[in-house]
Amino acid sequence: MPKRDREATRTRLLEAARLRFAREGYDATSVRDIAKDSGVDATLIFRYFGSKKRLFDEATAADLPPGLLDGPEEELVARMMRTVVEHDWTAYGGEHPLVAMLRSSAHEDARQRIREEVCATYVNALRDLAGGQDAELRAELLSAWLVGIGILRSVVATPALAEATTADLAPHVATVASGLLGRPMSGTSEG
Amino acid sequence: MPKRDREATRTRLLEAARLRFAREGYDATSVRDIAKDSGVDATLIFRYFGSKKRLFDEATAADLPPGLLDGPEEELVARMMRTVVEHDWTAYGGEHPLVAMLRSSAHEDARQRIREEVCATYVNALRDLAGGQDAELRAELLSAWLVGIGILRSVVATPALAEATTADLAPHVATVASGLLGRPMSGTSEG
Repeated sequence: MPKRDREATRTRLLEAARLRFAREGYDATSVRDIAKDSGVDATLIFRYFGSKKRLFDEATAADLPPGLLDGPEEELVARMMRTVVEHDWTAYGGEHPLVAMLRSSAHEDARQRIREEVCATYVNALRDLAGGQDAELRAELLSAWLVGIGILRSVVATPALAEATTADLAPHVATVASGLLGRPMSGTSEG
Repeated sequence: MPKRDREATRTRLLEAARLRFAREGYDATSVRDIAKDSGVDATLIFRYFGSKKRLFDEATAADLPPGLLDGPEEELVARMMRTVVEHDWTAYGGEHPLVAMLRSSAHEDARQRIREEVCATYVNALRDLAGGQDAELRAELLSAWLVGIGILRSVVATPALAEATTADLAPHVATVASGLLGRPMSGTSEG
């Protein structure tokens, strides 16, 4: 198979895997399901990825929104909130990817992947901004807020959060981010 | 069967159901599994609960920690945080019940149950305290924080939050709760 076709097949497999794992969780998803969804022979999945576990890891790998870590520091939390509110999660069945991954969380491998994702997406960058005493804890507390909002907005759909725009959230982003990080943070971002 | 025995059987069924639904989610759990776990005949489940859906509703019904809504208003968020941090979730397989329920969240009935739970446990009481403009949104934003912390502490196990005590969290509870509710809130509670 030419290299370009191999790449296309790989992409198709990853997309089908992402959606299956998101909807049904790790344990309930079989390599055969993914093969069927993508119209690719199951033996190719093993040739390309080696195992269901490695396919899961790759399908759910951190996909930091471009530009998240660029731009003014004081707008970092506002940029993160914007990705929570505005990002198109179609690839994950329309849900925040963490919710999708939580569905696999009875599985210790999946828990570790979720931990890595949360740290790579939120905690690490926020820890640098937090500085000082218990910076890690304050960075995780702010990450917990972003994760919780992603969940309440999407899968739980509590009435006010489900409808809220970034503008509605801006003053509260400024209050909570400034309070937890101990420095003035903006509730809005340019990007 | 004497009434006392019926009550004991019912309780045993609810316990087995809670654990199964928590670990495997609504769709992956069969009434036959629950019957086997509890050593009760499956036909009794239908006689007692009518359907799997009704059993699910009852097994995951709001179980507000006693005293949560009593005590000084300014300590309400601290009391809620205490239940997130200190509650024993053995009945849910050791995980925060919302995480357990999220595992069933591909199912619209389950989503609605989760929404009811979040509102009954957190949002309604916080809305009364928030008052004023966008009280509902601010109550949901604070609920999202508590839900996010429950998830990061338990299933995701980010390092600082997994280890944090109520005392470590107290100053941050005061900051975030006061900021979002727009009134002075305590980071500690007596109860």
